[in-house]
Amino acid sequence: MKYVYLFSEGNSGMKNLLGGKGANLAEMTNLGLPVPQGFTVTTEACARYYEDGEVIAADISAQIDEYIGSLEGITGKKFGDAQNPLLVSVRSGARASMPGMMDTILNLGLNDTVAASMAALTGNARFVYDSYRRFIQMFSDVVMEQSKAEYEKLITALKAEKGVKLDTELTTEDLKQLVGQFKALYKQGQGADFPADPKTQLLEAIKAVFRSWNNPRAIVYRRMNDIPGSWGTAVNVQSMVFGNMGEDSGTGVAFTRNPATGEKKLYGEFLMNAQGEDVVAGIRTPQSIDQLAQVMPAVFTQFSDIAHKLEQHYRDMQDMEFTIEKGTLYMLQTRNGKRTAPAALKVAVDMVAEGLCSKEDVILKVDPKQLDTLLHPQFEPKALKAAKPIAAGLPASPGAGCGRVYFTAEKAVVEAKNGPVLLIRQETSPEDIEGMYAAQGILTARGGMTSHAAVVARGMGTCCVAGCGEITVSEETESLTVAGQTLKAGDYMSIDGSTGKVYIGQIPTVEATVTGDFATFMSWADEIRTLRVRTNADTPNDAAHAVKFGAEGIGLTRTEHMFFDADRILPMRQMIVAKDEATRRVALDKLLPMQRGDFEGIFKAMGERPVTIRLLDPPLHEFLPQKEEDIAALARELGITAAALKTTIENLHEFNPMMGHRGCRLAVSYPEIAEIQTRAIIEAALNVQKETGLTIVPEIMIPLVGDVNEMKFVKGVITTTADKIIAAAGVKLVYKVGTMIEIPRAALTADEIAKEAEFFSFGTNDLTQMTFGFSRDDAGKFLDDYYARKIYESDPFAKLDQIGVGKLVKLAAELGRKTRPDIKLGICGEHGGDPSSVEFCHFAGLNYVSCSPFRVPIARLAAAQARVSELRGGGDLGQK
Amino acid sequence: MKYVYLFSEGNSGMKNLLGGKGANLAEMTNLGLPVPQGFTVTTEACARYYEDGEVIAADISAQIDEYIGSLEGITGKKFGDAQNPLLVSVRSGARASMPGMMDTILNLGLNDTVAASMAALTGNARFVYDSYRRFIQMFSDVVMEQSKAEYEKLITALKAEKGVKLDTELTTEDLKQLVGQFKALYKQGQGADFPADPKTQLLEAIKAVFRSWNNPRAIVYRRMNDIPGSWGTAVNVQSMVFGNMGEDSGTGVAFTRNPATGEKKLYGEFLMNAQGEDVVAGIRTPQSIDQLAQVMPAVFTQFSDIAHKLEQHYRDMQDMEFTIEKGTLYMLQTRNGKRTAPAALKVAVDMVAEGLCSKEDVILKVDPKQLDTLLHPQFEPKALKAAKPIAAGLPASPGAGCGRVYFTAEKAVVEAKNGPVLLIRQETSPEDIEGMYAAQGILTARGGMTSHAAVVARGMGTCCVAGCGEITVSEETESLTVAGQTLKAGDYMSIDGSTGKVYIGQIPTVEATVTGDFATFMSWADEIRTLRVRTNADTPNDAAHAVKFGAEGIGLTRTEHMFFDADRILPMRQMIVAKDEATRRVALDKLLPMQRGDFEGIFKAMGERPVTIRLLDPPLHEFLPQKEEDIAALARELGITAAALKTTIENLHEFNPMMGHRGCRLAVSYPEIAEIQTRAIIEAALNVQKETGLTIVPEIMIPLVGDVNEMKFVKGVITTTADKIIAAAGVKLVYKVGTMIEIPRAALTADEIAKEAEFFSFGTNDLTQMTFGFSRDDAGKFLDDYYARKIYESDPFAKLDQIGVGKLVKLAAELGRKTRPDIKLGICGEHGGDPSSVEFCHFAGLNYVSCSPFRVPIARLAAAQARVSELRGGGDLGQK
Repeated sequence: MKYVYLFSEGNSGMKNLLGGKGANLAEMTNLGLPVPQGFTVTTEACARYYEDGEVIAADISAQIDEYIGSLEGITGKKFGDAQNPLLVSVRSGARASMPGMMDTILNLGLNDTVAASMAALTGNARFVYDSYRRFIQMFSDVVMEQSKAEYEKLITALKAEKGVKLDTELTTEDLKQLVGQFKALYKQGQGADFPADPKTQLLEAIKAVFRSWNNPRAIVYRRMNDIPGSWGTAVNVQSMVFGNMGEDSGTGVAFTRNPATGEKKLYGEFLMNAQGEDVVAGIRTPQSIDQLAQVMPAVFTQFSDIAHKLEQHYRDMQDMEFTIEKGTLYMLQTRNGKRTAPAALKVAVDMVAEGLCSKEDVILKVDPKQLDTLLHPQFEPKALKAAKPIAAGLPASPGAGCGRVYFTAEKAVVEAKNGPVLLIRQETSPEDIEGMYAAQGILTARGGMTSHAAVVARGMGTCCVAGCGEITVSEETESLTVAGQTLKAGDYMSIDGSTGKVYIGQIPTVEATVTGDFATFMSWADEIRTLRVRTNADTPNDAAHAVKFGAEGIGLTRTEHMFFDADRILPMRQMIVAKDEATRRVALDKLLPMQRGDFEGIFKAMGERPVTIRLLDPPLHEFLPQKEEDIAALARELGITAAALKTTIENLHEFNPMMGHRGCRLAVSYPEIAEIQTRAIIEAALNVQKETGLTIVPEIMIPLVGDVNEMKFVKGVITTTADKIIAAAGVKLVYKVGTMIEIPRAALTADEIAKEAEFFSFGTNDLTQMTFGFSRDDAGKFLDDYYARKIYESDPFAKLDQIGVGKLVKLAAELGRKTRPDIKLGICGEHGGDPSSVEFCHFAGLNYVSCSPFRVPIARLAAAQARVSELRGGGDLGQK
Repeated sequence: MKYVYLFSEGNSGMKNLLGGKGANLAEMTNLGLPVPQGFTVTTEACARYYEDGEVIAADISAQIDEYIGSLEGITGKKFGDAQNPLLVSVRSGARASMPGMMDTILNLGLNDTVAASMAALTGNARFVYDSYRRFIQMFSDVVMEQSKAEYEKLITALKAEKGVKLDTELTTEDLKQLVGQFKALYKQGQGADFPADPKTQLLEAIKAVFRSWNNPRAIVYRRMNDIPGSWGTAVNVQSMVFGNMGEDSGTGVAFTRNPATGEKKLYGEFLMNAQGEDVVAGIRTPQSIDQLAQVMPAVFTQFSDIAHKLEQHYRDMQDMEFTIEKGTLYMLQTRNGKRTAPAALKVAVDMVAEGLCSKEDVILKVDPKQLDTLLHPQFEPKALKAAKPIAAGLPASPGAGCGRVYFTAEKAVVEAKNGPVLLIRQETSPEDIEGMYAAQGILTARGGMTSHAAVVARGMGTCCVAGCGEITVSEETESLTVAGQTLKAGDYMSIDGSTGKVYIGQIPTVEATVTGDFATFMSWADEIRTLRVRTNADTPNDAAHAVKFGAEGIGLTRTEHMFFDADRILPMRQMIVAKDEATRRVALDKLLPMQRGDFEGIFKAMGERPVTIRLLDPPLHEFLPQKEEDIAALARELGITAAALKTTIENLHEFNPMMGHRGCRLAVSYPEIAEIQTRAIIEAALNVQKETGLTIVPEIMIPLVGDVNEMKFVKGVITTTADKIIAAAGVKLVYKVGTMIEIPRAALTADEIAKEAEFFSFGTNDLTQMTFGFSRDDAGKFLDDYYARKIYESDPFAKLDQIGVGKLVKLAAELGRKTRPDIKLGICGEHGGDPSSVEFCHFAGLNYVSCSPFRVPIARLAAAQARVSELRGGGDLGQK
């Protein structure tokens, strides 16, 4: 088994084995670009590492040894050699890009001997000892988990002692002294000397990268981005080049196009006399890439050519890292660049116009989840005009954010449960990832457009203003000061990630629309996809909104929310406390005209698009009060005694309401409820048909069916009622009766149920609960333990569990079609708006997905991507 | 399609089509026995009747017409003919015997003209008008649902007017007058004349029998006896013979062996000058069948010969009905006789000894559910000796019953929820069926050994004392008087169904044992069966008891019940309120020795039989108090504030505890619980091995697994703990780790889970709840509606749902074996003791079923029956 590959042995098609970074380094090597050579330890070696109980097996370490030899041959340098020492960087590189999630070690191979001879050889002792102290610091932090901060304290102390401000002001002797102090601190922390042997350093570093695959922030990132824990990471060992060898050296990052806007123009930053971490960490403020044309014109031209070549080669916008060592350009990395949603759309539309990509190509290049940013509210223009910005930073990730400010990730996570929050940080670090995810927006005082905060926020689609130097953040007192004003935790601010402007107080927001590049792109998605996209909407407003976002029908109208309105809750309650059918009917008759009105509004909003309406689903006790005083008040209103009402409420109490008297079970006990709802639907359809001349085809959906006999019984109530009304009206009205498949038994007996049901809509929320046997309301108590122990990698309520729940969906689809080949199949759980779940639905052969209005464009794109995958022979089920 | 068969066209193999009664009438006809001829309208006609919306289709009524013609040809009589009129009986007859559940009409064909001419022809006007009035009464009751009681009032009034006591004292003229009054009453009730046309009478009667298939008592009976509603009933139309034509006529019922004891001796009763209903209804007290030898010796000899012939032919004990008309014997019915469990066993053992049947044959002849009677307590002999019977009745169904007395079926049903009840009735009627089912015993003041109460009680395995004339029952005042004492509803009595004795007060009871015929029979079952039978037992006592009943191991030891003991609940609660692992461990360490002691006791009781122990399963809040004062008391005991304890309890509150933080989810959050339980199990096994020299192989079962990663994690905790203890002990101990399959996802991903699990035990209680999506605790609220609307026919918690839940079981078995061919598969839900579910498990290829101790013999027999079915090529899955 081959566990190690030279860069020259790989190519960009080997991402699964070499990781993204390794595969691209190999590809660049093949393209003849200036890449410092090295080798990649494969993801399979990472898997072996975990299988073997977190050790590197002898056969793997032997291969690493062998490849060090090869690399020494290629570079003409030797590990630990005093004459011509080989230094390497060690970097993680997973199959999917996980920026900042795992660890990097630079300058590996240094020890006292090597440092001394390098100082002599390069004539640049300052650079050598600066590199050495960085190495010790990174090795301690990454490999030994000894905090970097302890080392930083020594630097701060030394600078104070020397009376200087910048690291660069420290002399060679200062740095030598620091190396000594660092080694002492290491020994103190570890109880052993800093390892001088480069091969020992390397093996430990590789193990540390493997371990970092399972650090908490990597686990969280994977959960958020649907990356399986089983993939593992590769490790890239690359010979070092130095951007910190003086003023003819430097390092930078750049994109072939603007990642915020999509504009076709080289975009990026560099720092002279610095190592890569200085740029990414956002500690010094770098120069724009344009300025490199002034600083080093030949290097700039060479870099521009390489950038163009890479974009043409990969047919996608590239995100590149480079280093200039004494005037020579080296490429350290290229990858498809992360970008904002508007940039992604502009790049996609432009690349088709440029003839670089086909429509199908670009459909695959936009992450559906990212569209979310475009679909969320922006500031209300008038309110925005009236608002005065108090400060401005870099427009790092577009969109409007407004909320209460918090200064730690932990607080942001907690408070986000009580409404929108903004996370305010000096600068973010990978530890902040959960807080960033919970926040509506992120504001940092330091860092550039490629700082951690900016990169991660763009990836998440969360708005971000970065490097806003005008604000002073105190994490200790949990406050910020800006323009002489102090804001405490919980105060309101608003930030605009598209302009970089920052406001005190709340600014109202407005809905997004689909226009321009977005509209063009979505029209291509619609051309390609075969899966239909409907929406879940309970009101005419929601319905109209969803139509604007491209909804082709309603997959789920919940009727219960309608009963909570002030004018309806009383008759609803009268219905519930009724002791017999006659009294129940009196109350239901009061609800009839209101409910009919609701449906008329929805039918009008949807026109001839199909509308699925679900009969009453929740247990009746949800409609009754629980508090003593509310019960007393309601009893007076209902004209019964409080004691009688209390008895009713007690009788309705359930041990497990999720599995109680709800769904079609209500219609079995009280057929008159189904009857009145049917009456409201059919009468509304007839009225709207008459008024508009449109053909309305209502789809009546029976919830929670588990047995064909339930379906048969409730369908009987519906058809008897509907047919009588239609016959009396003397006009034609076609309606359909179907069911939710949300109980495992319904899926298992779908062949039987399809005898009665004209359509199935998979209610994957409940189906997930029943299949997993846990209640969504209660699972919060233990799911964190599950993530911590890596038992689950993603939330099955957010991403459809394809192995378990998906098996039931496929089974039901198959059985349903066996009985009724033209049965219409859809999904109306919240999974309907999750891209990976949409892909699943496409391959499972469903007819449509239904999701909340603002996820409709996401589902449309995901459906198109699934279709392109299918046409290209990929995307098989169960592979994810 | 042929819907009607002459008796001569059928045979005993056609039960599905002709019903049991029809098939046996056909068989007796073929055997040349004296059977009044007739025809059978098939069960398929019944199905058509319901399909067509409760009407008899023209093609069916045409066939009925045609067969009336055939019957007229055979008998030489004609429907409605004044010279030689044909009278018929109309009786229901389903595939399975449902005694008293459906309706019968005798003397059909009578009208004024026919009656007058018959009176002249027979010279017995009294008999004719008696028959006529009976016919009007039955037709009104059965066909028109006009109560029989209204008619009885007219008889009572007439008797009073005439100053007579017995019906037989009424004269011909009296009866003629009664016929007139009856017809007037009919017209008053129905608004139309009593139908004079015999064909109209017949069609209405047939429809009434079809309708009676779905009367409430028939539905209840079917649910209790697993008879599908889809079967329908056949209708037998048979030419009448009359047992009420004078003192040379009579009617009776008899068994070829004693149905109470199994003794090989003709057993039965007859009444001279009576119709069949008089015997069955128990209104007049009949003579023993022996006495027929004195009354009509030739008829007795002929009958004895026929009885012997039938038993040899059917190779089973027969239950026969006969009528003697003017000295001529007619056979009206034969069927395999219902019998008590001791009788069933004696008959089985005897018939093998007689060479009449093989062991396999008799295995199929005993209903496993019936063994229940033998396994329930009997009176404690000493207490019984000391007790003085206050009265005695017929020993109608054996076993001891003790409880509070109630006088209506409704009250008995309600009160049975609060402890054992006895149902006391003047005489029972089919309407009492649910009350009889709920009661521990049944006591009637009237009726014989073949009265309704006796037949039904024997079928149910409930003890019954019938015809206890010494007690006077008043349903109005809800009391009884016996020997001068009056007992009110709720007072205690005890009855002995084996001796007929009745006691005031409570008599303690003792457990049953397996000896004699029972033991012989069970040894045959054990020889034949391949499915193993284990028990669910949580204590050494239960375990020892189950071993006596033949348990081959323990399939489920629940550990949670152990923690409710007075000395354990406090440390358990300390464990629950602990805020960190260290405090939790302190409490757990207190529980360790107690739990170890429990397991030592169980291992000793079971010897080398396998013992499966399940780790803690219920949500922790079940161990904490809910009431204000209990919380305060516990807080003092725990040394914390009541407020703190309340917060803990509130935090543990769950919306759906069934789907909450329980099962292996507890072990994921608190691995130390699994660790301590493992320690207790392994240490106990080591101790018992050392002490006894036996080889103990504990099976540790992880509950509620839904994902292989849960299994892997908890198994890791178990094996790490166990292996350390075993290594330290330095002896050999083999243990197994497996899981419950009780969550649908576990079944769906059983191939994955089997990678880690060495055995699966299907927890069909929870699996049924999750698969159906309803909570057993809450389903009571709507299941009655489901039965009423015929959506469900049986309780899925009592009888395994083979279509839905069964599909998951089969799937999991298949997937599990694919991964691990030698995986051990069992079932430990309550279904493990239900015969039809045991049969399912046999055919699904499980290794064992596990059930409560007193159901072990039932499961052993059911397993043997399944094996015999299989050997005989029947019993395919999903057929039931």
